[in-house]
Amino acid sequence: MAVEAAETALTAIGIFAFALSGALMAVRKDMDVVGMFVLAAITAVGGGALRDLLLGLPPAALRSSWWWILIALATAVVFFFHLAVDRLRRAVLVCDAAGLAVFCTTSTTIAHQVGMGPAESVLIGAIGGCAGGVLRDVLAGEIPSVLRKGTTLYVLPALLGCAIVVAVRSAGYEGVAAMIGASILIIVLRLLSLWRGWQAPSPKASRG
Amino acid sequence: MAVEAAETALTAIGIFAFALSGALMAVRKDMDVVGMFVLAAITAVGGGALRDLLLGLPPAALRSSWWWILIALATAVVFFFHLAVDRLRRAVLVCDAAGLAVFCTTSTTIAHQVGMGPAESVLIGAIGGCAGGVLRDVLAGEIPSVLRKGTTLYVLPALLGCAIVVAVRSAGYEGVAAMIGASILIIVLRLLSLWRGWQAPSPKASRG
Amino acid sequence: MAVEAAETALTAIGIFAFALSGALMAVRKDMDVVGMFVLAAITAVGGGALRDLLLGLPPAALRSSWWWILIALATAVVFFFHLAVDRLRRAVLVCDAAGLAVFCTTSTTIAHQVGMGPAESVLIGAIGGCAGGVLRDVLAGEIPSVLRKGTTLYVLPALLGCAIVVAVRSAGYEGVAAMIGASILIIVLRLLSLWRGWQAPSPKASRG
Repeated sequence: MAVEAAETALTAIGIFAFALSGALMAVRKDMDVVGMFVLAAITAVGGGALRDLLLGLPPAALRSSWWWILIALATAVVFFFHLAVDRLRRAVLVCDAAGLAVFCTTSTTIAHQVGMGPAESVLIGAIGGCAGGVLRDVLAGEIPSVLRKGTTLYVLPALLGCAIVVAVRSAGYEGVAAMIGASILIIVLRLLSLWRGWQAPSPKASRG
Repeated sequence: MAVEAAETALTAIGIFAFALSGALMAVRKDMDVVGMFVLAAITAVGGGALRDLLLGLPPAALRSSWWWILIALATAVVFFFHLAVDRLRRAVLVCDAAGLAVFCTTSTTIAHQVGMGPAESVLIGAIGGCAGGVLRDVLAGEIPSVLRKGTTLYVLPALLGCAIVVAVRSAGYEGVAAMIGASILIIVLRLLSLWRGWQAPSPKASRG
Repeated sequence: MAVEAAETALTAIGIFAFALSGALMAVRKDMDVVGMFVLAAITAVGGGALRDLLLGLPPAALRSSWWWILIALATAVVFFFHLAVDRLRRAVLVCDAAGLAVFCTTSTTIAHQVGMGPAESVLIGAIGGCAGGVLRDVLAGEIPSVLRKGTTLYVLPALLGCAIVVAVRSAGYEGVAAMIGASILIIVLRLLSLWRGWQAPSPKASRG
């Protein structure tokens, strides 16, 4: 009960934070209110939709009407107060980390439940958490930030958290504690990366 | 009978107009005949394919061979006469509005028929009508025009038409008249937007 | 038996070559190791995944764990030796042609087996072979190279090979010989295009 309430709360925070980041990107790219809503929506539900398509499940976003209210709300907030939201960038990043954590761990669990192997479950988990932001950047005409050199860790904490969930589930446990532990780990690693500027390794300079 | 014939005729006009706009975009982007055909196809059938994937249905474009003849024909017309087609821009925009109308209203109806809720049916309807053009712009390396500031209304008339279809269907009517009425409304609003330069609201300047 | 071994070997070569081209593109676009792996993966399995989604099948990449080992290996090779791999560009292109051939012919066969019509099977075949590279270019922020003027034949040999497979299968034969013959044809035409600089026709200059 408390776990479900916590998961719903984290999902709501994640949807809202992801939607904020999509709407802010739309403002930065000189889009109108339609573009803001579309980018907010694709960031918030795109990862889960891709996960569900790959697993052959009906998209969760089409069964969760209240998500769309959060997305519309985030769009409205950014429309009227984007300068203020931009100034709250740190708070948005913390909420985004919470969203990443909950989307990754639930996506991994869903994939493992429908019978995917361990490696595939981890991949699907990372897709559920990270693909929404990738689609946002593609629609905004940018190379996805999580793929670029010079950005802080995002996918690697996600993969690590997903791997822990799968390892615990594979050992025969139900995995609620693992989901909570993995979520906390993802959030902590993500925030540490932001704070300390940790980056993924890059190949040596390609020219020169 | 007459309704079905009208729907088939409007679908054909829509497929052809969407394919023309895709092929023209390819010419503008210095693509070869392969790029022209691919952009024509993705514009014409991409929205419906995404709708079908999200609803778990087999893609309509893979059961409608005559669509591909229209797409090939539109590609050929643009290949040989793109300067002339470019000069007929207004006629293409009118046909595009017809395509938008028929794709939106049929997509909404399909979504509602397979059991989606009202808000979800409206969203799927707008995706069916608008996503093809978004995919065309992404493949052409552009920020999708329907999302950008400074472009005339496109998604909002689509959403309004879809909402009317869902409202009438939810009230228990079969909805053929609603589909026709909503299609006319979409076309009229779209053409008025083009004529009068109506735009969706944008947030106040993000810098300054 | 020998045919299956040959198909597995060609698939492995194709996955590895496609993954190399994705990872090399990531290096050229200043991505980190995460971007390299994501681009390697999307190039290697994106076409097949899109084919499976359109056909309503579970994605092959989620049932083939050893593909992911090849993708990780290709990423590692490019990470440490990308200058050397870049110098082996010709060898990569030959392997890429082998991958194109095997992905096209298997995709067409799968589509035909699940009941698609001839034209639809050819389209799905070309999507299975070519869409991975298109997705790679989109994620890299480039207009897909196979669509652009001035690039050598890629999609047309693919379509021709797929058409041969469908024609032989439609005539009632099992099609193993056709798959082999079509694969060789695709490879030969692709390499001839590279060697002789063959290009697809383009429309006359759009400006001027």
